[in-house]
Amino acid sequence: MAVNLFNKVYDLEKEFRKSDEYTSLKRLFTEVNADPATKQLFNKFNNLQIELQQKQMMGQKIMQQEVEAFQKTAAVVQQNEKIAKLVEADQRVNMLIMEFNKIITKPLEEIYGSFEGR
Amino acid sequence: MAVNLFNKVYDLEKEFRKSDEYTSLKRLFTEVNADPATKQLFNKFNNLQIELQQKQMMGQKIMQQEVEAFQKTAAVVQQNEKIAKLVEADQRVNMLIMEFNKIITKPLEEIYGSFEGR
Repeated sequence: MAVNLFNKVYDLEKEFRKSDEYTSLKRLFTEVNADPATKQLFNKFNNLQIELQQKQMMGQKIMQQEVEAFQKTAAVVQQNEKIAKLVEADQRVNMLIMEFNKIITKPLEEIYGSFEGR
Repeated sequence: MAVNLFNKVYDLEKEFRKSDEYTSLKRLFTEVNADPATKQLFNKFNNLQIELQQKQMMGQKIMQQEVEAFQKTAAVVQQNEKIAKLVEADQRVNMLIMEFNKIITKPLEEIYGSFEGR
């Protein structure tokens, strides 16, 4: 495997670490976790979210009371400025990673998208 | 958004285009598509595979006859040297992209993996 190629990947990783998006996320995550009550609320919100996503992915039924429990926690979370900022920072980073993937996999799209019958 | 960061992404994309993995995939894909019978077989195999994956992802039941139809096509495909090579090249490229993602998202893992309660 080409050394050059992996050097480019590591260059990108290093630059990503220096980005506003990444450093903000890290700072906000540390802030949320430094405060026990905020940390507990954030973990609860996260666990509920992961649980629902997993059920959805596996095609399992999601109960009305589960949706309500999540919405209730989400409403409390939105009132918490620290968590709200962290969630926003997390979304920004995820969008950035999606942008990376789009650019990096464009050469593949050019191969697979350029022929009929697919 | 930092210009530097996106320059690194484009650097990686350019290097990826030059890689053995990518150029082989491109060449093999062109070869398969240059031969109508091989192309047709490859498309059939692909469509069946995508169909089954989508059903699986959506939690839909996969019928025994669908599995058998896929296995039958897969067996024919494995006899076709051009397609077998293309499938192998596709897997190599996918593994490469997965490696990229692992490296690029390691900084995120460091944030989210470093706190208890998650």
